[in-house]
Amino acid sequence: MPNPNRPLRIHHIAIAVPDAAAALTFWRDALGLEVGAVHDEPAQGVAVTFLPVGEGAIELVEPTDAASGIARFVASRGPGMHHVCLEVDDLDAAVVHLKGRGVRLITEAPVSNSSGRRLIFVHPSATGGVLVELYDSLGADASKRP
Amino acid sequence: MPNPNRPLRIHHIAIAVPDAAAALTFWRDALGLEVGAVHDEPAQGVAVTFLPVGEGAIELVEPTDAASGIARFVASRGPGMHHVCLEVDDLDAAVVHLKGRGVRLITEAPVSNSSGRRLIFVHPSATGGVLVELYDSLGADASKRP
Repeated sequence: MPNPNRPLRIHHIAIAVPDAAAALTFWRDALGLEVGAVHDEPAQGVAVTFLPVGEGAIELVEPTDAASGIARFVASRGPGMHHVCLEVDDLDAAVVHLKGRGVRLITEAPVSNSSGRRLIFVHPSATGGVLVELYDSLGADASKRP
Repeated sequence: MPNPNRPLRIHHIAIAVPDAAAALTFWRDALGLEVGAVHDEPAQGVAVTFLPVGEGAIELVEPTDAASGIARFVASRGPGMHHVCLEVDDLDAAVVHLKGRGVRLITEAPVSNSSGRRLIFVHPSATGGVLVELYDSLGADASKRP
C-alpha cells in the first residue's frame, strides 16, 4: 500500500564526533563544505554543527555532557555515523501509519528540538539497525529551514 | 580556502543489510519509499537496492559473497549504516585537492561501478570514523542518474 506520508528528502546525516572543531578539518577544510547553523541542544547534551549539502546536510554532533547518549555512543562504538534524518510531509500522519504497522518508536509522540522542529525517532530494532529520525515538514516556509 | 569541488548533494546513504527483501518491510512498506534501481555489483560481492528520497536515496547493500567487505561488516558490527556517498562536480579535481591535503583514500585513483559511475572512497581514518564515497557528477545528464 502506498504511504502518502512518505519521506520528502534526506534532511541530514548525523555524525557523532568527540570534537566538532577537529572534525571540521575534514568536512569543511578538505571536503569544502560550508558551516551553516551551529547550536546547542541542552536537552540532549550535545552541540550540533550543520554543513549544508544540496537539499540536505551533514550534522556533526558533539557531546557536551558525558552522560548523554552521544557521549556513550562515541565511548562504546567510536565516532561515526549516528543517525539519518528524513523529512516527512505530515509527521503526525506518519506516526499513526508507523504505529499501525507495529513499528517501535523511541517516544510515544513527537517532541520538539530547540529550534521548534517537531521530530520523532524510530528505534533501530524496527529498521534493521539504523537509528532513523523523522522531521515534520515546514511546508512551504522554507525560510525556517533547517 | 574555499574548495570549488565541494559536494553538490548527498547521493545516497548506504545501509548494510543481511537480507534486502526483509529490510524492505521497513523502508518500503512502513516508511513508504519506492524501490528504484536494483542491481548486482559482482566486483564488490553485493546486491544493491536504491530507494529514492528527494534528490538522494537510501541504498540497501546486501552481501552476495561471504568474503565481501559488507559481509564482514555485518558479521562484526551488525546491520546498519555503512557509508555516505556525496556527489562532487569534478571528481578528478576533488581527488587532487584531497591528496594535496594528505587525506587518505581507499584507492589511488577513481574506479567505476557496474553502472559506469566513477567513484572513490575516503578512508574512515581521514574523516573521523565515517566511510565516505565520492561520486563524480554526471553534469547536466540527469537521465543517467543514479
